[in-house]
Amino acid sequence: MKIVYDTIFCNSGSGTDIIDITPAVKAKISPSAVTDGSVLLFIPGSTAALTTIEYESGAVNDLRDAIERIAPRGLPYRHDQRWGDGNGYAHVRAALLGASLTIPLKGGRMLLGTWQQIVVLDFDNRPRRREIQVQITGI
Amino acid sequence: MKIVYDTIFCNSGSGTDIIDITPAVKAKISPSAVTDGSVLLFIPGSTAALTTIEYESGAVNDLRDAIERIAPRGLPYRHDQRWGDGNGYAHVRAALLGASLTIPLKGGRMLLGTWQQIVVLDFDNRPRRREIQVQITGI
Amino acid sequence: MKIVYDTIFCNSGSGTDIIDITPAVKAKISPSAVTDGSVLLFIPGSTAALTTIEYESGAVNDLRDAIERIAPRGLPYRHDQRWGDGNGYAHVRAALLGASLTIPLKGGRMLLGTWQQIVVLDFDNRPRRREIQVQITGI
Repeated sequence: MKIVYDTIFCNSGSGTDIIDITPAVKAKISPSAVTDGSVLLFIPGSTAALTTIEYESGAVNDLRDAIERIAPRGLPYRHDQRWGDGNGYAHVRAALLGASLTIPLKGGRMLLGTWQQIVVLDFDNRPRRREIQVQITGI
Repeated sequence: MKIVYDTIFCNSGSGTDIIDITPAVKAKISPSAVTDGSVLLFIPGSTAALTTIEYESGAVNDLRDAIERIAPRGLPYRHDQRWGDGNGYAHVRAALLGASLTIPLKGGRMLLGTWQQIVVLDFDNRPRRREIQVQITGI
Repeated sequence: MKIVYDTIFCNSGSGTDIIDITPAVKAKISPSAVTDGSVLLFIPGSTAALTTIEYESGAVNDLRDAIERIAPRGLPYRHDQRWGDGNGYAHVRAALLGASLTIPLKGGRMLLGTWQQIVVLDFDNRPRRREIQVQITGI
């Protein structure tokens, strides 16, 4: 049983950018020499999240619209009143969506559905360079 | 430390079916011969999710109603405009709820609460036969 | 590879208490003698959840307000009609937010962001003494 650490970097924009990191995650598996176990993804920070979705522009934009309804950017947020960041909505969205995701790995392949991609959602109100922690554990 | 793979199948209807898979998950533990570690559940696909809830019809229907408010089935979705699937709402719901769930295992027993069951939420607009990946890791 | 079990206790109030358990989780790492692996947190029960957030009162209150909009306490819930508990809203909130959270551990340190804390959200309508399961796995 071994534990391999890696990181994925991605650059995001300022309007709830939803980025497909599936190819980047897949590219980490073979070098890890782990074929069976799991891939733990974790995004450090408090204005971004991870989930899975069919990565086509329709569904991605639908998700963005739904998140805008759930935690609208235009509401007054107390975080902004205290700190003036203007990204109070982003903190709320990130806490609701969640920072961690674990995917089983079998025979060198993540057990994702055919139309299921791994995405980073960056809610912040300014472009960010994000570092996603990738931990591959297994045999 | 060993890793045991299994799958659970369940048949769902077309109206945000919420199915208790706790007995099916429990039935996988003893055959795995793992008593201490964790149970990783993952649902491949992009129109279903996993969570825990007290599985009684009141709470289950309340959750269904809340999800209907969060991502209403009747809204126009761009996924549907592009693909004509009619299940755009299901993609959004699945991305919001999440595809993975990990439960600690100790002494052959999952550390769930007494009134806490594991459920599959199938949001798709047609009956589906779902395969849930079960990975039991430990000693 | 070893598996260390521990528990964290916290006392919550009755108004969607959001409690920072980061120091309590950190305090479990060194005694576990695991430096590399992961920390799995799981909250047994069906009226509480786990997530991460920047733990400052502005963002925490914003999250509380957002959850109140998503699953308002004042709506009629069928769980309450059946059982008279008055905490139907809490069951819905807990199922939406989720009971488990996994954080990678490297060199004895959780790979959290600088402003990212681990929180318990207790939605129940009465004060509770909560037990959070902490499982540290690794080398």
